[in-house]
Amino acid sequence: MNEIPHWLEKQSDLQPTNVAIEYGEHQSISYSELREESRKLAKGLIKKGVKQGDHVAILSGNRVEFPICVHALSYIGAVVVCLNTRLSPEELAFQLTDADATSFIVDTEFVEEGHKAIELTTLNEDTLVTMDHLPKADGSISLNDQLSLDDVFTMMYTSGTTGKPKAVMHTYGNHWFSAVASALNLGLSARDKWLACLPLFHVGGFSLLMKNVIYGMPIRMLARFDAEVINNEIRHHGVTIVSVVTVMLQRLLKDLQENSYPRSFRCMLLGGGPVPKPLLHKANERNIPVFQTYGMTETSSQIVTLSPSDALRKIGSAGKALAPATLKVLVGGRIAEPYETGEIHVRGPMVSSGYYKKGHREAEYLATGDAGYLDEEGFLYVVDRVNDMIISGGENIYPAEVESVLLGIEGVEEAGVTGMPDDEWGEVPTAFIVKKEEADISLEKLNEYCRGHLAPYKIPKQLFVISQLPRNASNKIVRRKLFKSVEGEHGYEH
Amino acid sequence: MNEIPHWLEKQSDLQPTNVAIEYGEHQSISYSELREESRKLAKGLIKKGVKQGDHVAILSGNRVEFPICVHALSYIGAVVVCLNTRLSPEELAFQLTDADATSFIVDTEFVEEGHKAIELTTLNEDTLVTMDHLPKADGSISLNDQLSLDDVFTMMYTSGTTGKPKAVMHTYGNHWFSAVASALNLGLSARDKWLACLPLFHVGGFSLLMKNVIYGMPIRMLARFDAEVINNEIRHHGVTIVSVVTVMLQRLLKDLQENSYPRSFRCMLLGGGPVPKPLLHKANERNIPVFQTYGMTETSSQIVTLSPSDALRKIGSAGKALAPATLKVLVGGRIAEPYETGEIHVRGPMVSSGYYKKGHREAEYLATGDAGYLDEEGFLYVVDRVNDMIISGGENIYPAEVESVLLGIEGVEEAGVTGMPDDEWGEVPTAFIVKKEEADISLEKLNEYCRGHLAPYKIPKQLFVISQLPRNASNKIVRRKLFKSVEGEHGYEH
Repeated sequence: MNEIPHWLEKQSDLQPTNVAIEYGEHQSISYSELREESRKLAKGLIKKGVKQGDHVAILSGNRVEFPICVHALSYIGAVVVCLNTRLSPEELAFQLTDADATSFIVDTEFVEEGHKAIELTTLNEDTLVTMDHLPKADGSISLNDQLSLDDVFTMMYTSGTTGKPKAVMHTYGNHWFSAVASALNLGLSARDKWLACLPLFHVGGFSLLMKNVIYGMPIRMLARFDAEVINNEIRHHGVTIVSVVTVMLQRLLKDLQENSYPRSFRCMLLGGGPVPKPLLHKANERNIPVFQTYGMTETSSQIVTLSPSDALRKIGSAGKALAPATLKVLVGGRIAEPYETGEIHVRGPMVSSGYYKKGHREAEYLATGDAGYLDEEGFLYVVDRVNDMIISGGENIYPAEVESVLLGIEGVEEAGVTGMPDDEWGEVPTAFIVKKEEADISLEKLNEYCRGHLAPYKIPKQLFVISQLPRNASNKIVRRKLFKSVEGEHGYEH
Repeated sequence: MNEIPHWLEKQSDLQPTNVAIEYGEHQSISYSELREESRKLAKGLIKKGVKQGDHVAILSGNRVEFPICVHALSYIGAVVVCLNTRLSPEELAFQLTDADATSFIVDTEFVEEGHKAIELTTLNEDTLVTMDHLPKADGSISLNDQLSLDDVFTMMYTSGTTGKPKAVMHTYGNHWFSAVASALNLGLSARDKWLACLPLFHVGGFSLLMKNVIYGMPIRMLARFDAEVINNEIRHHGVTIVSVVTVMLQRLLKDLQENSYPRSFRCMLLGGGPVPKPLLHKANERNIPVFQTYGMTETSSQIVTLSPSDALRKIGSAGKALAPATLKVLVGGRIAEPYETGEIHVRGPMVSSGYYKKGHREAEYLATGDAGYLDEEGFLYVVDRVNDMIISGGENIYPAEVESVLLGIEGVEEAGVTGMPDDEWGEVPTAFIVKKEEADISLEKLNEYCRGHLAPYKIPKQLFVISQLPRNASNKIVRRKLFKSVEGEHGYEH
C-alpha cells in the first residue's frame, strides 16, 4: 500500500499538453515537457555517477530548473538537499558536509558562493554542476516509475534561531499527505493556479512543487516577491491562491491601493509566524480571503489551517489541525485548559520522523517549540517560540504579543522584543524598533500606546531605535541577537 | 505515518453543526450528532461483548443506522462484514460462517431472513441485534481516536458470477486512498453533495459513507433508486454528484423528459460494467456530465475514471487510472499493443491485499478478470469479463460488445449473449432478449441490424426471447445461466 506511481509520470499521462509551470515573463512548461526535461537530466546525472540513495544538494533561486532538478532526483531515487541561498559559504559548507552531499547543483547566480563552499569541504570541484550546464542524456537508462511513500525524498535544514541547523528528513509520503491534507481543507478546482513567490528551498515554497504534480495543478513561479507583479497576476492572470508571510501581505495591501481582487481569487494562505491582528482586519475589510496557517519544516509545511468557513469568525487563529493531523497543547505534561498557553504538539502522516543522523523521534507527537493556546472551540492561536518567552516577576511574556502591539504605533516599521536581566523582576521586556523615516519614536510615546493594549508587566521598559533587526536566513527575527546589535549603546530607559 | 485521527472525530471537530447525511423525507443528521450516535452505539455494543478485532455482520438497506453502525464498529476497532440484502438465508448463513462473524446487526426489514440465516449457523440467537433496538450506552468507555491505515476495516463478498463468493478485505487505508484518489480526479468543492442511491453494502455505495467523513462532504441517502426523486434532488435540492449504473442512467434520462439539470450538477459517475454507447451519446446531447468509471470490490470502488476534461473527447472509455493507481493490459504475460484486448491489471494503495482466509496477493498487480484495451493515448475501454469470452472459429467475441449493439434495436429492453457449443466453429454467439411489450423481435430483424454494426462472426446465430435475464445479487447478468433459463426451449435458429 505504500507505493504510488511517480507523480510526474502520472500527470504527464493524464494531461500531457497542459501547462505545469508558468515562469519568467511569459514562459511556461507543460507536464510532458517537464517530464521530458526531468528524465533527460536524471539520465545525464546517472551518467555523471549520481545513483539511488545519493544526497544531492541544490542551491538555487526560484527558476524552472529547480523543479526539473527535484524531479530528476526522484527519478533516480536520490535525496534532494535544499540549501538556503542566503547562507554564507561557511554555512553552506557546514550543511554540505553534515548532509553527506556527494553532488552539488548550483544556480548560476550563486556559483561563486558554491565554489567557495566546496573549497571548505572535502568534495571535489567536479561534483559541482551549474544550472546553465545541466547534464542531459537520452537512451534506455532505467528510471523509477513508482515512488515509495516511506523513502526519504528531501532534507531541509531548520532555520534554527538557536544552535546548529539540523536537517529535517521528509519522505515522499510526508509530502504527499501534506498536499492532500491541504486539498481536503481548501478544496480543489480545475481552475486553480497557485502562485509561488516564497523561496522553493523552504518547505512552504517546495510544497507548491509537490501540489503541482500531486494535484496536477499549474503554478505560477516568481523569482522573487514583487507586490506589483503579484497583484497583477491575481487581478488579471487567473491566479487563485497565493502563499505569503506577514510582510508580503502588508506590501500587497499597500500596492493594491483602492483596487480589489476578482472573486475567483479564493485564498491568501498566510503562514510564517504570528500575525498582527490589525493587518488581518484590514485584509478582511478589503474582502481578501486570508486563511492563517501554521506549520514548519518538520510538518512539511502547513499542518494547522483556518478553514474558509471559519475565516471570518476566528480572525487571528491559525485554525484547526488538517484532516489527517492532530494537535494538542501541553503545559508541564498535561493538556492545557482553553486559553492556557503551552507548547504546541502535533502528529500526522505529514510530520517528519526525525533529523538526519539524530535518530527517529520516539514520541508520537512532535514538540514544536512553539507556544500557543486553544480557545473553547479548539481553534489554535500561536503565541510565540517557547524559548523566546520572557519571565518577569513570575509572569510569562511572549515577545510576539508585544511586538504585534508595537506594530500598531504610527511610525513603527518593524519591532523586536526580548528580555533584559533585571535585579528586581528577573527579566524585563525591551523593545527594538526600526522606525519609518521622519517618524518620532520615544519610550514615552510607546508606553502611552501600550497602556491601552497590554498589561503593565508586558510593557517594554527600555527602547532601542535601530536601523535593522537581526534576522536569520529565513528572514525571521533572531531575538537572542537583539542586544548584540546595539552593544555599547544605551537605550531610552523607563 | 500510518495513523490518522478518527475521521468522524475530525469532522465533528471541524464542522460540528453542518449536515452530514440527509435521509428519508426531510431528515438529516449533523456531524456531531452522527458522532454522538455512533459513540453511544459503540459503547452499547462493547457492553454487549463486542470487542476490538471482532467481525460484525451488517444486513441492512440504505438507512441512517447503516453508517452509524459502521462508525460505531470503527470506534471499537471491529471489522464490518457487509451483507447483500438480496441474499437467501442459506447464502447469508454461508457468509456469516465463512466470515467468522460473532455478531449480526439486522435491519428490521430483513429480520426474518436474519433469523433464518442464524439458524443455519452455529451463532446464538442473542448475537442478533435489530436496528430498531440498537444498544446504546454512555459513560467513560475508551474508544479509538486514531485509525491505523493498515488495519482491516471492512469485508465484502465479491458478487462472484462464478464459484463461491470470497470476502474482500479492505483496510482503513484502502478506503482513505480511494476517497482521496477520487477527489484528485473530480476536484472537491465546499458546495458538493453526493447522492447515494446505490446499496451501501456494495463498495460503490459504501465509498460514499467514506467520502462523507474523509472529505467532510454531505451526502443525500436514498433507500432505493427512484428516477423521479433523484431528478428532483438534482434539479431542486443541490445534489452535485450522483453515482449510478447503466440502467439507472437510462431511467433518469427517461424520467427527465425535456427538463435539464442545473449547471451546478457536475458529475454523473457511471460504473458497474460496460456501457452502451448510444446511452452516452444521448446523455451528452442533454448536457449531462457523465464520467465513466471502472472499479470493483477489490479496488475499494473506482480505480479508473474518465476525467472531466476528457469526458467529451473519449466517450465510451473508462478513462485512466486515478493518480495513486497504475493500470496495464496483459496478453499472455506481455503488455498489450494499443487496441489489443487483454486482461486488465491494476495496482495502487486502494487495492485490497487479498481475500479473507485466502492469504495475501503476492503479485504487485491485481488481475481483475476483466477484458479491456487501451487506445493509443492510454485510455481504457472495458470490454467484458475474461471468462465470458466466446471463441468462435479462433476469433474472440466479447458478449458485452454484442449486447451493446442489440440494445440499439428498437423493442429490445435487455440483452444477454453467451456461447453455444458448435461442431463447426467451436462456439457460436447466442442472444437472449427481453423485449418491450408489443415489440416484434425476430432473428432476421436482429441479423439485419447487426450486419451494419458487427463482424459476421459476432452476429448471434440463435435467439431466445425470454421474460427476464438471470442476474446475481448485484444485479449483474450471469451469462453461464442464460441457457439454464430456457432449458428445453428452442430458439429461433439462423
